[in-house]
Amino acid sequence: MSFNTFGKIFRFTTWGESHGPAIGCIVDGCPPNIPISEKEIQKDMDKRRPGQSKFTTQRKESDKVSILSGVFQGKTTGTPISMIIYNEDKRSRDYESIKDKFRPGHADLTYFKKYGIRDYRGGGRQSARETASRVAAGAIAKIVLKKIIGKKISIVGAVTQLGIMGCDASKWNDSEIRKNPFFCPDKSSVNLWEKYLLEIRKSGSSCGAVIELRARGIPVGLGAPIYSKLDADIASALMSINAVKGVNIGAGMGSAFLTGEENSDEIRGGAGKIKFKSNRAGGILGGISSGQDIIASFAVKPTSSILNSRETINKKGRNTKISVKGRHDPCVGIRAVPIGEAMLACVILDHYMMNKAQCS
Amino acid sequence: MSFNTFGKIFRFTTWGESHGPAIGCIVDGCPPNIPISEKEIQKDMDKRRPGQSKFTTQRKESDKVSILSGVFQGKTTGTPISMIIYNEDKRSRDYESIKDKFRPGHADLTYFKKYGIRDYRGGGRQSARETASRVAAGAIAKIVLKKIIGKKISIVGAVTQLGIMGCDASKWNDSEIRKNPFFCPDKSSVNLWEKYLLEIRKSGSSCGAVIELRARGIPVGLGAPIYSKLDADIASALMSINAVKGVNIGAGMGSAFLTGEENSDEIRGGAGKIKFKSNRAGGILGGISSGQDIIASFAVKPTSSILNSRETINKKGRNTKISVKGRHDPCVGIRAVPIGEAMLACVILDHYMMNKAQCS
Amino acid sequence: MSFNTFGKIFRFTTWGESHGPAIGCIVDGCPPNIPISEKEIQKDMDKRRPGQSKFTTQRKESDKVSILSGVFQGKTTGTPISMIIYNEDKRSRDYESIKDKFRPGHADLTYFKKYGIRDYRGGGRQSARETASRVAAGAIAKIVLKKIIGKKISIVGAVTQLGIMGCDASKWNDSEIRKNPFFCPDKSSVNLWEKYLLEIRKSGSSCGAVIELRARGIPVGLGAPIYSKLDADIASALMSINAVKGVNIGAGMGSAFLTGEENSDEIRGGAGKIKFKSNRAGGILGGISSGQDIIASFAVKPTSSILNSRETINKKGRNTKISVKGRHDPCVGIRAVPIGEAMLACVILDHYMMNKAQCS
Amino acid sequence: MSFNTFGKIFRFTTWGESHGPAIGCIVDGCPPNIPISEKEIQKDMDKRRPGQSKFTTQRKESDKVSILSGVFQGKTTGTPISMIIYNEDKRSRDYESIKDKFRPGHADLTYFKKYGIRDYRGGGRQSARETASRVAAGAIAKIVLKKIIGKKISIVGAVTQLGIMGCDASKWNDSEIRKNPFFCPDKSSVNLWEKYLLEIRKSGSSCGAVIELRARGIPVGLGAPIYSKLDADIASALMSINAVKGVNIGAGMGSAFLTGEENSDEIRGGAGKIKFKSNRAGGILGGISSGQDIIASFAVKPTSSILNSRETINKKGRNTKISVKGRHDPCVGIRAVPIGEAMLACVILDHYMMNKAQCS
Repeated sequence: MSFNTFGKIFRFTTWGESHGPAIGCIVDGCPPNIPISEKEIQKDMDKRRPGQSKFTTQRKESDKVSILSGVFQGKTTGTPISMIIYNEDKRSRDYESIKDKFRPGHADLTYFKKYGIRDYRGGGRQSARETASRVAAGAIAKIVLKKIIGKKISIVGAVTQLGIMGCDASKWNDSEIRKNPFFCPDKSSVNLWEKYLLEIRKSGSSCGAVIELRARGIPVGLGAPIYSKLDADIASALMSINAVKGVNIGAGMGSAFLTGEENSDEIRGGAGKIKFKSNRAGGILGGISSGQDIIASFAVKPTSSILNSRETINKKGRNTKISVKGRHDPCVGIRAVPIGEAMLACVILDHYMMNKAQCS
Repeated sequence: MSFNTFGKIFRFTTWGESHGPAIGCIVDGCPPNIPISEKEIQKDMDKRRPGQSKFTTQRKESDKVSILSGVFQGKTTGTPISMIIYNEDKRSRDYESIKDKFRPGHADLTYFKKYGIRDYRGGGRQSARETASRVAAGAIAKIVLKKIIGKKISIVGAVTQLGIMGCDASKWNDSEIRKNPFFCPDKSSVNLWEKYLLEIRKSGSSCGAVIELRARGIPVGLGAPIYSKLDADIASALMSINAVKGVNIGAGMGSAFLTGEENSDEIRGGAGKIKFKSNRAGGILGGISSGQDIIASFAVKPTSSILNSRETINKKGRNTKISVKGRHDPCVGIRAVPIGEAMLACVILDHYMMNKAQCS
Repeated sequence: MSFNTFGKIFRFTTWGESHGPAIGCIVDGCPPNIPISEKEIQKDMDKRRPGQSKFTTQRKESDKVSILSGVFQGKTTGTPISMIIYNEDKRSRDYESIKDKFRPGHADLTYFKKYGIRDYRGGGRQSARETASRVAAGAIAKIVLKKIIGKKISIVGAVTQLGIMGCDASKWNDSEIRKNPFFCPDKSSVNLWEKYLLEIRKSGSSCGAVIELRARGIPVGLGAPIYSKLDADIASALMSINAVKGVNIGAGMGSAFLTGEENSDEIRGGAGKIKFKSNRAGGILGGISSGQDIIASFAVKPTSSILNSRETINKKGRNTKISVKGRHDPCVGIRAVPIGEAMLACVILDHYMMNKAQCS
Repeated sequence: MSFNTFGKIFRFTTWGESHGPAIGCIVDGCPPNIPISEKEIQKDMDKRRPGQSKFTTQRKESDKVSILSGVFQGKTTGTPISMIIYNEDKRSRDYESIKDKFRPGHADLTYFKKYGIRDYRGGGRQSARETASRVAAGAIAKIVLKKIIGKKISIVGAVTQLGIMGCDASKWNDSEIRKNPFFCPDKSSVNLWEKYLLEIRKSGSSCGAVIELRARGIPVGLGAPIYSKLDADIASALMSINAVKGVNIGAGMGSAFLTGEENSDEIRGGAGKIKFKSNRAGGILGGISSGQDIIASFAVKPTSSILNSRETINKKGRNTKISVKGRHDPCVGIRAVPIGEAMLACVILDHYMMNKAQCS
């Protein structure tokens, strides 16, 4: 059971609403003696932070993370690491006008029907603000992975599809990703994307996105059949992110279109090394990492809050209309990049620890 | 932690290898006083059973399930239900020739690297034979759901994409699905699919498939933020099935291509009823069921064991080749239909019980 | 896995060290729409609060609890309830003198050997200060139980043995318990206990205690065989409290001395009611509540920090001595009463919810 | 959630009723490449097997265990180990006379009230027959512990109190324990115990027992604060055994009577070794093993089924009487010795693996 907890050994539990005093998380099961600082975590927080470009939400949050426990003299103690992020831009009055309406595409209706009560301010618990806690937990996971596996490990995400606009994944360049406001890995697509998204924003609409994650330097043997498969846990991790509707591992949904020859990555040995001739499997076979790069991607649906008027009902079940006033966020998918990285880092560390428990 | 256990309250644990004496599962947390019979479970088992057409594996298994505990005088007692299925067609000698080779696309390599030992007979634990246990557990979940939610509930799966061949999902017809060997829901596609798959088989190759699941009559309010979201648990459940590489909820990966207007399903009320004008969300908003049909789909990669020779290495790391002798299974995805249904049924029942615990 | 989490459906996770900025907990799985206030929780906090009499620790803490999430307009929303308690009396310098020594009877040595690092300030995570979080979680559990089961439910604890001094349990009087500084339920023992404990304190020594818990008005049917038995979960809950070394259910360890006739509580019926002629079982049969009062008791070992000098070693493994300076706490068991009540409340609510999930 | 599953990483799930076709368990998370045989497991099964002396139940069971999965060519594969034990002596007709009555001291009433249905044959799931599965799982845990920690580890139990008859624990002799039908560790008490128990049996009554467990050679550092403390998990493990009503760690309930000086085991170092001058703590400080012997004891209540007539009610709530016909079991506690050993072995291995995951 884990309503608000993720993970098996390396676990984090998040709490908080968009417009409460703060949000935060507890990271439990972290290995001891790992040097950790708020500053290091803050770097990842800043990647997700809102208000960084005209293409993401204009909410102003510094998203400053504070560590309240579990770190002593700069090192983890093996006890729970509690982190808190105060909510600063809580303009709850903005939500008064919609407090009795259910926003289409949001979870307003389902939360209300489930719980019989809902915190309508900014979506309350359903707000993507919760993902800031994931990024904080993921930042710790990354630090631990680098410390115990080594510096060769890297977990990098990018937007590979922005609405109807693709990019050339063969031109993927890690250092390019942070240079443009779309986390696009292919420099040649940036200008086109910018025009496209400006148009979307101007029209008061929104678009979806596909984010691809690449984890390199991952040891072989992580993952556990049958119901803790590495890919099953990645799928759960990514699908739990707000607005995600699809998850692929390697060739993913496209596997259906392949032939057996194309699909089964051939293996070559020699000199004590194992090489695969392709990576349709996304680095995972039978739920266990193969030593290849782990490749996962996920789709984020278009921002549900748009300027254009939408039909809906109110709490009394009566028909009404709704629209967002002022500026909006034309593509929530963009900010999902650091969140996806964080979730993947947590899954990998968790499986690293599980594998150590059973198989080392 | 749950290497071989699935679920939170309604849980099942599976065990067994392809070529051991038997496989089986334990269903725990089942509500008491539910009438259950081996005969009823057998119906679902028979849907998955191999050797039913020339398009699926020719292994001969009756897959007869026996209940060993948890049912007294025809009713569940609330204690664990142990089920066993004996392995009959265990021609282990067939595997002697490949016992030192790693089959590309299979988990031979990763199991061996992880555990330092592997049961090479039929893939051992990695064999899709394990899924028979899932179908048995899912059969119980379906019986319980019908008993406690009512007969209006139905969970139906079909193959909607066979390799490069699609079908017209708007022609989906439940009663058609069981009439053709492909679980195709669109009668008009069956002949084309048959020709296509015969060709694939004859060429010694294989193809992938997409399976779509539709759960109807599901109450609003199932699912629990943030890390037990209904869709996250469905994603984990489906991705844990052998050879699955992608999972979609509703519009899924296609969400990326939609506009905000297309994506956010508008809501209409009146007369105490709630209707949605579309179902891009696949019946799940914020991880909670909306009362609409739950729509999930998943891709199964092409059968990795094909007649054509493939490059690989042996246990010593030396280069070699491998190919399957005799008949092969041109599309493992076909038999995934009842498995997908079973997993979805288990997830829904589990969340039904969780919701009852917290919110009723 | 649950290093710092307790419970199955109604779960709480605690964090924080004795001398960090704060401690706190997250309560997850709480039913929605339950009226909850900080004021109500504070009442239970105040029972555990240090510095209330000369017989308990002189640390000055207001132990003021703040709710950071999960409550909206005075009611629970079904989302995680985060609570924080700031540490005020953090005289960390007091611990400089013992930072390289392992206090006998404390977990200094085992924490250091396990983690390779320890927060020596006030014991860090091993400090009983953590139990303040349990009391906060338990306060919520009690409020929920009263709301959903009814006001007839009560969970009351008392000290029934103070060192070598017993009391007459047949004179148990709920209203007496809060009137004396020992939580003694038998008025006639209070004076003797006072003299005894003053003597202990004066001599620089300490004594243990037995706390008995009585839960009344508990429905029949709570608890789940085999490994979530109500008594097994109570045993785990109470044994997890700092310094607890023994747990009894009903006749407990004394069961060994009974005859079969004395032990098996006879049952009487009639008029639709079930009565037992005795309650050796402590209200639990086969791990399931019988409808009788649930009776559990636990022993708290004597305070390990005493004025008298004790032999020990330092971090380098060299022999040394240690003693506490200034005032000390002659019986830590006294303050365990509200903690035991809190843990029992959490277990009962958790099982109430589990039972509802499976059996209602 | 774990109705019928015990453990976190090394986990076992049991199933089966006293009078069904079989009982069994699945051991999950076992390390791979451990040599395991049915013969080795059978040795432990035989210790628990009924009908071995006139002092234990006369049910005739060979309790032969068969491994159905998870072991290949004599070694564990890291996949679930399924074990089955067929029920042979199923004289269900014996129970017809009591099928509508609730046996006092048993769980007949609580099972029926909870589930609305009960398998009355031999107690069904509540039967102590379930403990055979624990012994099988524990046998595997012991084999694994010896393999990965080394031969110096030993986990031994004995009856130290038989009804009102104690023994001299200072005369504890491992090799004596198996030589007498009471698992008594003190040779000098055996004759007295025999006379006492014959008397109890002749009188148609029964008595309780205290079992003490000693685990030697356990590494320092096992156990995890706060809610997975080693002692909390041992308490849960032992309290989950049928008829257990109390659990002590080290001085246990007796801690209450100690002074601070007596209680806090002083520590001595030198030459790289750590020695404690006493072991009141039972080898556990702050929930973590200290490297001393782990000492736990538990009380088993007297057999509830006795020859003498007892008052009870029937399913309709009417008053009636009940008594056992023929031979009975004068002290069920005796056979709890191998069960306690098994549970302790499982807890220790589980924590060994957890510790490896987080702290190695």
